[in-house]
Amino acid sequence: MIERIAILGTGLLGTSVGLALRAAGFKGSIMGWNRGADGARAALAMGAIDSIATDPLQAAREAQVVLLAVPIYATLDFMEQLSGVLGSEHLVTDVGSTKGQISALGSRLFNTPERAAFLPGHPMAGKERGGATLADAGLFKGAVWLFTDDPDAQRSPHSAELVKGWREWVAAMGSKTLDLEPARHDELVAWVSHLPQFVATALSALLEDEVGDAPELKDVGGRALKEMTRLGASPYSMWRDIALTNTEAVQAALHALEQRLAHLRENLRTPELRDEFEQANRFRRE
Amino acid sequence: MIERIAILGTGLLGTSVGLALRAAGFKGSIMGWNRGADGARAALAMGAIDSIATDPLQAAREAQVVLLAVPIYATLDFMEQLSGVLGSEHLVTDVGSTKGQISALGSRLFNTPERAAFLPGHPMAGKERGGATLADAGLFKGAVWLFTDDPDAQRSPHSAELVKGWREWVAAMGSKTLDLEPARHDELVAWVSHLPQFVATALSALLEDEVGDAPELKDVGGRALKEMTRLGASPYSMWRDIALTNTEAVQAALHALEQRLAHLRENLRTPELRDEFEQANRFRRE
Repeated sequence: MIERIAILGTGLLGTSVGLALRAAGFKGSIMGWNRGADGARAALAMGAIDSIATDPLQAAREAQVVLLAVPIYATLDFMEQLSGVLGSEHLVTDVGSTKGQISALGSRLFNTPERAAFLPGHPMAGKERGGATLADAGLFKGAVWLFTDDPDAQRSPHSAELVKGWREWVAAMGSKTLDLEPARHDELVAWVSHLPQFVATALSALLEDEVGDAPELKDVGGRALKEMTRLGASPYSMWRDIALTNTEAVQAALHALEQRLAHLRENLRTPELRDEFEQANRFRRE
Repeated sequence: MIERIAILGTGLLGTSVGLALRAAGFKGSIMGWNRGADGARAALAMGAIDSIATDPLQAAREAQVVLLAVPIYATLDFMEQLSGVLGSEHLVTDVGSTKGQISALGSRLFNTPERAAFLPGHPMAGKERGGATLADAGLFKGAVWLFTDDPDAQRSPHSAELVKGWREWVAAMGSKTLDLEPARHDELVAWVSHLPQFVATALSALLEDEVGDAPELKDVGGRALKEMTRLGASPYSMWRDIALTNTEAVQAALHALEQRLAHLRENLRTPELRDEFEQANRFRRE
């Protein structure tokens, strides 16, 4: 049923979606647009898209499904522009890491019988570095793909079918889907995704200050240190919009961790330390 | 030159040393002792040791090199006992994770021409769970094996040869060696090993409180969350002695991270966030 897809933003996620769709047997056309020409050319060379669009709005009009795979503020900008040029024969969906602002704008601009459908999405997959050249057809295998759809959406039968069809392709790419309310989504990812990232960033920055001038000392930490700081390589550009659009939930999670670390620090020599280890062990029980 | 080794403690590290020595071509005898009989039997069945000792002091007397691979306070206890029964034809070495107390006791009880040599050691290798059954002949490949030897040691020529011989076997097991002063060792591992562990414990314990009752939500975090909490599975029993013997350095590292997290929390919407990401990126530069 879905035969024409436009991917706006062929970075790591957009290009991986193109590759994963092909690997799952998608035979239709995939147009790709990217702000930088290198990313679009790389996606084309890898077979993730079969044509490069120079005008993203024109590509969106020609497609049935428009996947926004750009940073959050760029996603919000595209939503404004697309709402003026698309209609009930279209579905717009995205991969943004926070869903409060995107879902609210989607309900305001889309999801009436005359307008395009908007399905807010968030695949829980990525790498610590971005870019089309790191894209991977298997990136979404075994991952959870979150949706924060609007229960009050009034969609045309055609665009409702596109929503159903896109959900099927997400499953075909190997992801489990989970539906959440936008506010619950943003709170949850603050704990299980944003907090781990900001901890890795703080730990890496601190260790750079302490032992960064002695490369041989980094080796001392071994596998555990590498693992705990891998996300330290994530660039600011990937996280700025997340920090700006999920500030309160991230602040609450960081503050809770600061208190937990202080509690642990004050109890290194008391039986409380055992309780903390046992609670941590529970999180990792099989 | 080294033909008889006694491994006191056939847990993960002791058993892995036995396997690694065999893999590196050690043809002599390896006696093993363990507090629990299961661990000794497992080490024997895996070929890490070729006999089980019932009396650890007797096994030590019969060996040339005695490897203490037990928790830190048990190591200190064994050092006291062994100093009374061993002489200049012996080397005692260990794998303890903190070196201040162990090195000080070693200098007090060993390292005269009439007494056994003591070489404080610390392989930077391990797993989040212990036990002989998880032992691995390749555990020390590419790892750093730290030594905090006493520059004032007065050793017999024979025991000095055993020290040299043991360092050669450590290299043969695939480890790079690095020599540090005991105080510098304990400060360094507080940053690159103990801090990452306590952060993983605090993060895992906090997340267990927040999302532990909903297993489907743990999946949402994906690979990054798994990595950042893997060490959360480490048992208290492996870390209690470290917390007790390196308290001040660990407290300083934890306090510094708390401040770093607070700084990041207060700057989620300012350009300072960029500086923190860039400093973290430097730690992970290739």
